[in-house]
Amino acid sequence: MKFFHTADWHLGKLVQGVYMTEDQAFVLEQFIQAIEEEKPDAVVIAGDLYDRAVPPTEAVQLLDEVLEKIVLKLKTPVIAVAGNHDSPSRLNFGSGMMKANGFHIVGNFTKDIQPVILHDEHGEVHFHLVPYCDPSVVRNILEDDEIRSHNDAAGKMIEKIKQDMDPNSRHVFVGHAFVTPTGDEEENTSDSERPLSIGGAEYVDAHLYSAFHYTALGHLHQAHKVLEDNIRYAGSILKYSISEEHHKKGFLVVEMDEAGNVELEKRLFTPRRDIRTVEATMEELLEHPVNEDYVFVRLLDMAPVLSPMEKVRSVYPNAMHVERKNYASASNVRDGEVTVNRSKMSDLDLFKAFYKEVKGMEAEEETEELFKEVLDELLKQENETSNVAKKEYIRN
Amino acid sequence: MKFFHTADWHLGKLVQGVYMTEDQAFVLEQFIQAIEEEKPDAVVIAGDLYDRAVPPTEAVQLLDEVLEKIVLKLKTPVIAVAGNHDSPSRLNFGSGMMKANGFHIVGNFTKDIQPVILHDEHGEVHFHLVPYCDPSVVRNILEDDEIRSHNDAAGKMIEKIKQDMDPNSRHVFVGHAFVTPTGDEEENTSDSERPLSIGGAEYVDAHLYSAFHYTALGHLHQAHKVLEDNIRYAGSILKYSISEEHHKKGFLVVEMDEAGNVELEKRLFTPRRDIRTVEATMEELLEHPVNEDYVFVRLLDMAPVLSPMEKVRSVYPNAMHVERKNYASASNVRDGEVTVNRSKMSDLDLFKAFYKEVKGMEAEEETEELFKEVLDELLKQENETSNVAKKEYIRN
Repeated sequence: MKFFHTADWHLGKLVQGVYMTEDQAFVLEQFIQAIEEEKPDAVVIAGDLYDRAVPPTEAVQLLDEVLEKIVLKLKTPVIAVAGNHDSPSRLNFGSGMMKANGFHIVGNFTKDIQPVILHDEHGEVHFHLVPYCDPSVVRNILEDDEIRSHNDAAGKMIEKIKQDMDPNSRHVFVGHAFVTPTGDEEENTSDSERPLSIGGAEYVDAHLYSAFHYTALGHLHQAHKVLEDNIRYAGSILKYSISEEHHKKGFLVVEMDEAGNVELEKRLFTPRRDIRTVEATMEELLEHPVNEDYVFVRLLDMAPVLSPMEKVRSVYPNAMHVERKNYASASNVRDGEVTVNRSKMSDLDLFKAFYKEVKGMEAEEETEELFKEVLDELLKQENETSNVAKKEYIRN
Repeated sequence: MKFFHTADWHLGKLVQGVYMTEDQAFVLEQFIQAIEEEKPDAVVIAGDLYDRAVPPTEAVQLLDEVLEKIVLKLKTPVIAVAGNHDSPSRLNFGSGMMKANGFHIVGNFTKDIQPVILHDEHGEVHFHLVPYCDPSVVRNILEDDEIRSHNDAAGKMIEKIKQDMDPNSRHVFVGHAFVTPTGDEEENTSDSERPLSIGGAEYVDAHLYSAFHYTALGHLHQAHKVLEDNIRYAGSILKYSISEEHHKKGFLVVEMDEAGNVELEKRLFTPRRDIRTVEATMEELLEHPVNEDYVFVRLLDMAPVLSPMEKVRSVYPNAMHVERKNYASASNVRDGEVTVNRSKMSDLDLFKAFYKEVKGMEAEEETEELFKEVLDELLKQENETSNVAKKEYIRN
């Protein structure tokens, strides 16, 4: 049995105000092509198909098109669960009717978890679909007051699954949760992973999944194993935050033998536009070749830069963010770099720096004099106005 | 061939702030029962399955359950189009995958309208599904600049359908539009039918549908024929406004013979709670037996009534609205009834009327004196305050 494990598509996602729909369609086309070429027995999507409960219609259309191609055109069963970003009920719509065609989706958690059963030459493989679910919901549905945390909930659900588990079959768990080697916090989250719970208690102990031959997880955006080689996050299909800059995005090819042992291979996607950091002075940057990537620019200039985004976009038209590396820490000398504390500069010095930035040359003495005159005039006026205002205030 | 024609379910509808979901589930259960008993060859839903583009999850669940019962359990094909209240793309999701099971839905209008073909002992019946669509969208998709109105759009679409129409088959049109005998305005709309266009041009001439053996329409909430016996609105499944008070809600049973002639029968639903007007004085009303209907109460009392909704709800716990019949026209004598112009009553008379309403008896002389004293005091204070305010204003 060979299946593809993917997760965290987040269709409808906005990154820095930019819809990722075209970028998502671009890599999903590669995914479809891989299915066409490698003909897996199934595709597993471990939650967060959409980025929000009510996704934009473009996202709905994209998912519809992709699923139609995989399920109807390529006749490859799709096995999916809802993640914490999905709306359980909305994702569940039509699941009964679509099942017959090979699209198996579980949006709402229910008491009675029936596995999806696929066959290969060695027999049955049972896929156990557990959507993301708040512990309070699991507590109500299982009528078990002891369930307080995600770990409790996962434990009880898996206990239930194990009760009916056919010992002669192979078993795959498909879920969406924050699983760590010990059920404690670890430091590998990204900015684009919404926390499952506020105030902790969201971690699930990977040891719980030991009964399964493979555990296909979604939620964390970096592909990685947890505790064992056969407990895996596929990671998101795209970088959804600059904090994911160094992730390699793709999907996993899982080959399961007769005994349920798995061999894994990671396939990478080529993104339409990369998300990455560019560090340079403006002068250097303007020499770069024009590039379509979604860059986050960190300017190394000491002096202020006028209209930085406009300039950056002449080279990086899809730049998402520009910041001055030394700006935030302007009052410190950090990493041995000399920085300027603008708040301590005189008005005249500020003007001179600004003039130089705009005109590209030092201000002449005459210009300086003119500036001082105008400034004095303004300050005098401001003083008078504020005195008048004070008087008015006292009188009222 | 026998099929049921229904329309305008408006799942997720709020009437006067009350969700109709339970009421909708109640009549849809009757609908499902009728399908189970009469075994039609198909069910046609002519648009407005939902009340809005993003329906509440309860509505999504209800539609999912109802369709699963009809399509999967009762194996009855469902043929549906989106109405002006539905989101074309959201309703379209999964349509490709659900088709194979017998759920045929067209959310988005496309250039290439392929009929759904069903068979009976006499041959094929072609169902032509045309969702609600703004003329501007049809104009773009058909690349025809002459399309300006709904009538233009319908004309062009039907022209396209007719080009490929098999003359040896029978044809049913399924659409969602405002069709009138001549394509001009007529006076049979209800408050709960959202206009298709602002500023007219929304009417479609019924003559356009003459090529079809039956035209199953949705949009207008009252079941009726348009021009010919075989061009029909099924009406909504429930009263969705008090202006629909006298409608009989249900669905149509359409029996089509070999030649395409139809015989029609209307089946009525029993609503969980009726929507109707109650006209009575409060005294009379309080004698009525307790009733769960969604009543709109018109009080015939001359005098003001204190806490009217509270009193009404002791008899009609689901009352939606209470008004005084004579209140709005209080300054006129209308229909021969004597009414009181309160704006011409003195402060003292107003107080006396209020006292009587609250205490159930006339105010004693002592009470009147007390009221006058307090009133004088208040008026004096108000005068002084407003003089002070005037002075303040001048000074500033």
